Amino acid sequence: MRKTSVAVVGASGYSGEELVRLLLRHPQVELTAVTSRQFAGQTVAQAFPKFAQLPQARKLRFTEPNPELLSKQAEVVFLALPHGVAGEFARPLLELGCQVIDLSADFRLKSAAAYKEFYGHDHPAPELLAKAVYGLPEIYRTAIKSASLIASPGCYPTSILLPILPLLQAKLIKETGIIADALSGVSGAGRKAELDYLFVECNESVRPYGVPKHRHLSEVEQELSLVAGQPVVIQFTPHLIPVNRGILTTLYLAPHKHFTSEAEMKTLADQISGCYATAYGKEPFIRLLEGNALPDTKNVTGTNVIEIAWRLDLRTGRLIVMSAVDNVVKGAGGQAVQSFNIVSDFDETAGLI
Amino acid sequence: MRKTSVAVVGASGYSGEELVRLLLRHPQVELTAVTSRQFAGQTVAQAFPKFAQLPQARKLRFTEPNPELLSKQAEVVFLALPHGVAGEFARPLLELGCQVIDLSADFRLKSAAAYKEFYGHDHPAPELLAKAVYGLPEIYRTAIKSASLIASPGCYPTSILLPILPLLQAKLIKETGIIADALSGVSGAGRKAELDYLFVECNESVRPYGVPKHRHLSEVEQELSLVAGQPVVIQFTPHLIPVNRGILTTLYLAPHKHFTSEAEMKTLADQISGCYATAYGKEPFIRLLEGNALPDTKNVTGTNVIEIAWRLDLRTGRLIVMSAVDNVVKGAGGQAVQSFNIVSDFDETAGLI
Amino acid sequence: MRKTSVAVVGASGYSGEELVRLLLRHPQVELTAVTSRQFAGQTVAQAFPKFAQLPQARKLRFTEPNPELLSKQAEVVFLALPHGVAGEFARPLLELGCQVIDLSADFRLKSAAAYKEFYGHDHPAPELLAKAVYGLPEIYRTAIKSASLIASPGCYPTSILLPILPLLQAKLIKETGIIADALSGVSGAGRKAELDYLFVECNESVRPYGVPKHRHLSEVEQELSLVAGQPVVIQFTPHLIPVNRGILTTLYLAPHKHFTSEAEMKTLADQISGCYATAYGKEPFIRLLEGNALPDTKNVTGTNVIEIAWRLDLRTGRLIVMSAVDNVVKGAGGQAVQSFNIVSDFDETAGLI
Amino acid sequence: MRKTSVAVVGASGYSGEELVRLLLRHPQVELTAVTSRQFAGQTVAQAFPKFAQLPQARKLRFTEPNPELLSKQAEVVFLALPHGVAGEFARPLLELGCQVIDLSADFRLKSAAAYKEFYGHDHPAPELLAKAVYGLPEIYRTAIKSASLIASPGCYPTSILLPILPLLQAKLIKETGIIADALSGVSGAGRKAELDYLFVECNESVRPYGVPKHRHLSEVEQELSLVAGQPVVIQFTPHLIPVNRGILTTLYLAPHKHFTSEAEMKTLADQISGCYATAYGKEPFIRLLEGNALPDTKNVTGTNVIEIAWRLDLRTGRLIVMSAVDNVVKGAGGQAVQSFNIVSDFDETAGLI
Repeated sequence: MRKTSVAVVGASGYSGEELVRLLLRHPQVELTAVTSRQFAGQTVAQAFPKFAQLPQARKLRFTEPNPELLSKQAEVVFLALPHGVAGEFARPLLELGCQVIDLSADFRLKSAAAYKEFYGHDHPAPELLAKAVYGLPEIYRTAIKSASLIASPGCYPTSILLPILPLLQAKLIKETGIIADALSGVSGAGRKAELDYLFVECNESVRPYGVPKHRHLSEVEQELSLVAGQPVVIQFTPHLIPVNRGILTTLYLAPHKHFTSEAEMKTLADQISGCYATAYGKEPFIRLLEGNALPDTKNVTGTNVIEIAWRLDLRTGRLIVMSAVDNVVKGAGGQAVQSFNIVSDFDETAGLI
Repeated sequence: MRKTSVAVVGASGYSGEELVRLLLRHPQVELTAVTSRQFAGQTVAQAFPKFAQLPQARKLRFTEPNPELLSKQAEVVFLALPHGVAGEFARPLLELGCQVIDLSADFRLKSAAAYKEFYGHDHPAPELLAKAVYGLPEIYRTAIKSASLIASPGCYPTSILLPILPLLQAKLIKETGIIADALSGVSGAGRKAELDYLFVECNESVRPYGVPKHRHLSEVEQELSLVAGQPVVIQFTPHLIPVNRGILTTLYLAPHKHFTSEAEMKTLADQISGCYATAYGKEPFIRLLEGNALPDTKNVTGTNVIEIAWRLDLRTGRLIVMSAVDNVVKGAGGQAVQSFNIVSDFDETAGLI
Repeated sequence: MRKTSVAVVGASGYSGEELVRLLLRHPQVELTAVTSRQFAGQTVAQAFPKFAQLPQARKLRFTEPNPELLSKQAEVVFLALPHGVAGEFARPLLELGCQVIDLSADFRLKSAAAYKEFYGHDHPAPELLAKAVYGLPEIYRTAIKSASLIASPGCYPTSILLPILPLLQAKLIKETGIIADALSGVSGAGRKAELDYLFVECNESVRPYGVPKHRHLSEVEQELSLVAGQPVVIQFTPHLIPVNRGILTTLYLAPHKHFTSEAEMKTLADQISGCYATAYGKEPFIRLLEGNALPDTKNVTGTNVIEIAWRLDLRTGRLIVMSAVDNVVKGAGGQAVQSFNIVSDFDETAGLI
Repeated sequence: MRKTSVAVVGASGYSGEELVRLLLRHPQVELTAVTSRQFAGQTVAQAFPKFAQLPQARKLRFTEPNPELLSKQAEVVFLALPHGVAGEFARPLLELGCQVIDLSADFRLKSAAAYKEFYGHDHPAPELLAKAVYGLPEIYRTAIKSASLIASPGCYPTSILLPILPLLQAKLIKETGIIADALSGVSGAGRKAELDYLFVECNESVRPYGVPKHRHLSEVEQELSLVAGQPVVIQFTPHLIPVNRGILTTLYLAPHKHFTSEAEMKTLADQISGCYATAYGKEPFIRLLEGNALPDTKNVTGTNVIEIAWRLDLRTGRLIVMSAVDNVVKGAGGQAVQSFNIVSDFDETAGLI
């Protein structure tokens, strides 16, 4: 079986760690380099004891990041760096011929101006923006196949876009008035020594944050606008919830068709059902729930799956769509590996089931 | 200091337990009877070891509920029974001259038909509905003062109504399109031995439920409609979150006034600010957050306080209001004691601060 | 690659579920039957949504348990039934030629009298006791290889025996005065609808239980006695801790050699170190921690690994050994699969790394 | 009712916060000053929103600590500072005539040498050691009454000493071989921005730490030795558990009397029972559990109570004693207030029930 040599840059955060977990077990990957200033010199097994039973984890040592060296060690480089830093790092790697899969926000936006508006500083490599493909496999599979620079989506955007895009594409819902109310586990805040994320501050606490203009809005609205063919502005409220992993998103949508009877509702339900079945019926990582089932983050934890369920409300005329993902798998490392599989021409589920 | 003799019927659930906790410490209450089929014969201290340091908890024994006996033991009787049962119990107590404060849903709705629609069975005492006062003190203080039957509001309704009612009253928001997205701790499900509420099933889990037609909608819509002067229908999505206590509610509201500039937004913000200050500036249990602060359930846990914050969104034209309450205090036992203080002509904060 | 047909009887509890998870992913297993009265008729994917991405989970349906049918469907049958029931079920399966791996306590004890003392009822199949092999692979690998009936150890016993047995065997510690203080996650209590295990009762709670005579003592003492060559009686205190998975055990042991100086302590430390290295240095699922590292359940969750660390205390002359396992993997389903791999002559780590 | 003016120095940690909570509600306290470098300038209500409903919390502002000013503002000063710092602060306050109740470790040890051994630096005010009284009210009530410097015990020591001291005093147990295995909530680690105490690192984690020589050993052994009349050395293993509050300690003790029959055990049980009843039967904050009850941290959370239960084990001849306290109440702020009540000649339970 063909194997690809792979490196992970910035592997000390929660997304980087998850990426390492997946790549160490991937049957067609040889993980040849991992970098982290904090862990440089340690083996992967020392930094992450939970991987220590894997032989490669006991051999491979963290190094300081060095693009030239990396380009000799790896055909594909995953960047799990903070935004701003990732962009600077991608340029030399691309020039040296690596394929780059970036988990930061740096290449998700097509517009350097929008980037500056939402991230507060100039884009580190604006000339590369046109080159980057947004790594949402269920939507951009063909473009990902031939990309050299893949911008893996954010965790919230994944949980919002996958449920909405087919409905918007099929013109079943209006592009106005969209609300995304989302609940995230604490790993979403990153491995950062800040008082707000201490156990005692998060346990027995539920709270909104970043209201009303969270950074992830920029990529969500970009992608919705592209499909809608017109600018889409949405409402997005993230909340911090005392779980380690998982995002639960509830979407409030307005169907184009007014329904005022059970019969009309049934007709619309069939269309929505058909729309999702067509779009996602064969997707290996999308679980369309049936019957009374509603998404539950515990059913997707540790997997690359997104659960989606929906309900029409005859009383309000609204469509409620709910989704659950693991923020560090389908929302980060797992989705990046899925793109990697596509670009490497491997089975898309390799190392992910 | 004058003391009132008080009984709690059905004190084995989480709301009943909280009520007992508050009443045992209340300086103007003598808790003379507590009933519970499950605990009959045990002292309060035996059933709830955490209260055992209070002398009365070591003396008072749970009994089987008996209206006649209760009417001799207590001037005021709190009912913490399941809906349907509470209604039947209230009738004899009222006839025997007790004041009744009911924590169930049985007397919250003015219409027996609405009750049947949402609770699935005939109302147990429809003739009493006209008599009952909805026990939301900040709104119905005057009516509560002279009530003999008080229907203490549900936990979700409290977290939704208090933030919305003044805005609706002041005609600052439209009565259409209201969305309430709410997150509740597991005590909200009651002390019931069901698989869904086991530790392992709730920990590391976040999930919606009861979509789209939760029972609490009935009382929320009734109260909004009364203030709006027309039927109001809202969207409500509850979620189960792994905390013991706390409800965090995020409300999506449409201001009557369109605002498209910072200046217009500022004007509207001043109106909203003024509206809340007028309505709640002197309320002892409403905390209007300032500056960057947003509600956090951990700041209200164990207290009778509701935290409220709001943001206008220039991008969407919406008003986002967020609230936090402890579902078993302001959302149940504490609010019931607040009504009790009013009806007893005690300081409204007695036993609650 | 050769595949073995396998069935799981009683797959609705947490251990059974974990067993199904591992077997569905095992490269040399074809899971051909799963039984559960509660789930009969449902597919594995319906009962356990988190497995739904695995094709076999969508095909395989739970059935009522029927030994004759099972013997036609599977070469190896895992029993994840309550004690008492498992014993009755094993007999026909063995007669029909199946290999049986039992996760209950029914075949762990060599003495039917000890079984009755600790489990409170007569043994359901005493004639099979002599046939059963205690499925602790690191200790009984050879016997397991040719066993037709394997009694997979309990979760607490695994966390206690693996750290102690080599020391006892090497006569480094006394067989008297052993204390095992153990902390278990709530899944250890099983998927049972009981008030004690509700989220609200376990969250923010830490408590001992079953003091001083927990059932698991019987198998622990039996195994220690066998190695010591004389009856061993130990002290064991289990505690319930608000995590889903994991057991952390702290063992207090008395070295045979008295040490009163750093030098004497160093000599003993080298012996202990050597003892563990010899016993477990090549074991794929035993992680002997080095340097300052101490066991942490989060480093073994979801894996078949046991972490072990130890410290000598010059002040008290004692040896403290600490271990961490995932109670439903190395403490249940994973260890059973490890035995299965041995008895099937597969790589011992197949499906477990 | 007489009121005492009180200050809290270093009120930004979890113990300091709890102290503030208790003092704000204490009927005979006027909290006149709180200091914290981090919060200087803010009101108590701003720093701790959960206290905002209390009028004094909205008025009182944090200041930089200044002994001279404090001595004018307060008759009694509580120090909730790190060890080393507290000692330096106490001296000027005492000279200026304040009573000092120190929650740090600085005045708990009678020996400056032992302090240096366990805390790693010279004692900041050795001349004051002889003056200090160890603030364990149930043991040192008389000495506390007339103390000007009270050293409030640590959380672990409280949970260990209260159960052991009466038994040791009555010579019911040996002073050798004592083991204390203790489980602590994460607030015990303090409000510190360190990776180890992030939510994600603590949730779903159970781990020992500080093995085998934790600092709290020094005060535990000092107090046991004083009562035993000879040097006592014990084994102590702390563990970190994912709860906010609570310590559960399990003690392994050796009765002086050998018991080998039910009858002998019964005799000893009566003696133990009598010993505890005599020592603690009238103590307002000690709950001696009866029947099958075992300690549970959730039954003491938020209270100044310690729960104690014990079992004799006929199989091993050992006595197992278990205790539960809230580490920031009986283990810190509450116990300090209890000493304050004694020294102020108030009812000992004032502000604590």
